[in-house]
Amino acid sequence: MGACHTRANVPPRPLRLATSAAVQKDAARPSPVALIAKKRDGHEHTSAEVHALVAAIMDGSLADYQTTAWLMAAFLRGLGEREMVALTDAMLASGDTLKLGSVDAPKVDKHSTGGVGDKISICLGPLVAACGAAVPMIAGRGLGHTGGTLDKLESIPGYDVHLDARKFERVVREAGVSIIGQTARLAPADKRIYALRDVTGTVACIPLIVASILSKKLAEGIDALVLDVKVGRGAFMPDRASAEQLARSLVRVGKRSGKRVTALLTDMDAPIGRTIGNALEVREAIDVLRGGGPADTRELTLLLGAEMLVMTRLAKNRGEARQKLERAMADGSGLERLARMVRLQGGDARYVLEPERLPKARHRIEVRAPRSGYVNDIDALGLADLAVAIGAGRKRAEDVVDPAVGIELCVTRGDALTVGAPLALLHVQSRKHEAAWVEAALSSFSIGARRNPVPPILIDRLR
Amino acid sequence: MGACHTRANVPPRPLRLATSAAVQKDAARPSPVALIAKKRDGHEHTSAEVHALVAAIMDGSLADYQTTAWLMAAFLRGLGEREMVALTDAMLASGDTLKLGSVDAPKVDKHSTGGVGDKISICLGPLVAACGAAVPMIAGRGLGHTGGTLDKLESIPGYDVHLDARKFERVVREAGVSIIGQTARLAPADKRIYALRDVTGTVACIPLIVASILSKKLAEGIDALVLDVKVGRGAFMPDRASAEQLARSLVRVGKRSGKRVTALLTDMDAPIGRTIGNALEVREAIDVLRGGGPADTRELTLLLGAEMLVMTRLAKNRGEARQKLERAMADGSGLERLARMVRLQGGDARYVLEPERLPKARHRIEVRAPRSGYVNDIDALGLADLAVAIGAGRKRAEDVVDPAVGIELCVTRGDALTVGAPLALLHVQSRKHEAAWVEAALSSFSIGARRNPVPPILIDRLR
Repeated sequence: MGACHTRANVPPRPLRLATSAAVQKDAARPSPVALIAKKRDGHEHTSAEVHALVAAIMDGSLADYQTTAWLMAAFLRGLGEREMVALTDAMLASGDTLKLGSVDAPKVDKHSTGGVGDKISICLGPLVAACGAAVPMIAGRGLGHTGGTLDKLESIPGYDVHLDARKFERVVREAGVSIIGQTARLAPADKRIYALRDVTGTVACIPLIVASILSKKLAEGIDALVLDVKVGRGAFMPDRASAEQLARSLVRVGKRSGKRVTALLTDMDAPIGRTIGNALEVREAIDVLRGGGPADTRELTLLLGAEMLVMTRLAKNRGEARQKLERAMADGSGLERLARMVRLQGGDARYVLEPERLPKARHRIEVRAPRSGYVNDIDALGLADLAVAIGAGRKRAEDVVDPAVGIELCVTRGDALTVGAPLALLHVQSRKHEAAWVEAALSSFSIGARRNPVPPILIDRLR
Repeated sequence: MGACHTRANVPPRPLRLATSAAVQKDAARPSPVALIAKKRDGHEHTSAEVHALVAAIMDGSLADYQTTAWLMAAFLRGLGEREMVALTDAMLASGDTLKLGSVDAPKVDKHSTGGVGDKISICLGPLVAACGAAVPMIAGRGLGHTGGTLDKLESIPGYDVHLDARKFERVVREAGVSIIGQTARLAPADKRIYALRDVTGTVACIPLIVASILSKKLAEGIDALVLDVKVGRGAFMPDRASAEQLARSLVRVGKRSGKRVTALLTDMDAPIGRTIGNALEVREAIDVLRGGGPADTRELTLLLGAEMLVMTRLAKNRGEARQKLERAMADGSGLERLARMVRLQGGDARYVLEPERLPKARHRIEVRAPRSGYVNDIDALGLADLAVAIGAGRKRAEDVVDPAVGIELCVTRGDALTVGAPLALLHVQSRKHEAAWVEAALSSFSIGARRNPVPPILIDRLR
């Protein structure tokens, strides 16, 4: 309970309005205003009410200005688990659910809450496919400091992220993995609600995030889902408590929707791997599929992939799963799956097998260590902002990204440095703002006289 | 501080989003989303921000769906006194302020938060005018259980509530009082914001109510204002704490806007006087202006009028003020002012001087006491709902009211009754639902074996 109050000293307390019996009788079929007021006053909606709300949003009987009032009330009052389940179901039911009837393999996907240098989907999907799973993945575009898997894959000439359901199913069947963008037919209610959240300060709300993520992922027709919930400066939610709360809600609501769900909380203080920027990240993912790549990119891929294989019973335990995944790296079967997916989606698979073909920026600016010491910290958010500034990301949804530009790290946390040693290469198309860019890059590195311990990638595992 | 939370067990706590330095730099000129987020997180807006918000609402750069998100955040987070002052000023500044330059008399008005049987404006305005004040009153229409002064005055054939500023000033100058409806040029921001509050469950919010009331009243160009804040079943806010909080906020914000402001908290458990319904209430107001009328209607008129005369220094103290007002009742000068106002606004003044001309309903249904005893309670809300049911009020803004119908009480609280004695007369146009109406009327009277003390009209006086 609780309601409007002047801030000074009055605790949330209901400000009752006189309501006549005649008005109360109408409450049997609640009006839009009654539904908004119910959430405003901190009450829990029935599942039927949540479905009615989403239906009213989609048929226009709830105006946008009423939807946003409800969203703000939900933001500030919260939604309970039953409401999250109902909201997920209702948003899922607003569109199609892929059946993938011709795909025999167990269907599993991964969702990351978004990070800096997060190219994991590009190596993970093909690897898991090579181990026997089917990965029907709907991915997103980058915005702000968070990169997007679709932008990265579009570094490969011809790669088409817009497949219809039939074509998507074919690629999943034949390559074991397909990565495409959200279509208008999958969870359209999420699309509509998200657009309103984006312009009303109601994005950062765990229950709404949960329903948004799960409605889209469940529309893929999957059996199991692993969630990579990022924690740290470069993450959507910087603090562990919020991230953990999000992860727990995702797991609980996903399970109540009948799916096998696991969440990993992983470190996102420093960028993942050595690259930030679209073509650079594809190349790093290919390196992992060739059995190489940075240790942390590789490890995160193995951690997530192991969960996926265990949940789909393609491996008895995580140890066996890791062995299978490592084999798929070593024998090139993962790389072959990526090439197959790219080819089936209209892309030029030579770019996968000969990644030196990927677009290259005109200039490389070296950023060198101003003093000797140990790399104790690399600020993912600072470098992400720099990546946006040089054209690798978007400030606004309508911005165009340049696939060639980005940041290549020459060091990782824990490395010892001598003065003048290379810290990073900025892949840029112009040197116009070179000094400012170098300064921004330098300020993202913290170099100390003593070596700090490097935090582990995996913070926690929630089932 | 505080933000989104799942309800279960998490206290309001900020859910921080990673924000890059680039984004923070933009905060110098806050975006609409930044303003919404600021209120969402419980921070206080600067006055400049509040003015920017209202300007953005009026020029359309803040979309309705953003305005309503902000309104819900303001509802749940509250507004501080400085924000209320700024919101009042900004809404006032969105339109014209009447100058009334040709009116020499001190300008004073009364605002009631709305009650049942509240015809006070119709006798109070003319009486106070007869005592030397000018009363430029913008009044409203009835909705739900609350009656509206405009509807009541329109029982008088020809009475025009739509005057332009020039004509309004002329009536105030020549009659000392004019009662009209809100025009599109006075506080248009309030009109726009109120329309959005009405459909998003954000009406019952004290800071928003304060700014709404005061912006309209200050647009009248008044020097002083008395507020009749109703408490009880028939009031907008049934509980004393909320009503008192509203009254205090109104007085504080009104004073910070440079006006003399007093608020009376008055009882609204039982209807005011003996009538509910438009023509019936005009008749009762005329009775008061003729020196008669029910004791409580008369007393409430004197209480409010005395504050108005003291604030405008037309009386040294409340005692002297009451004497002046009583004289204006006894000598007919108040009645003459009402007749003058009606005439100047196009109405037929014979209806004021010969109120038996006022529209009459076809039937009168007697409601009789089912047992003997004392009238211990009369439920204002129950009777107001009945009045709406028989056509005297509106369920929806687009409903038409019938001026002739209504409820006439034959008793007041504290009266002794014998079985079968008349309790009320229902003035109706048809007997179709007679049994249900009588039952509804009866259930609004509480008759006991012992006489309960009758609560005083005046609960508290706040300056």
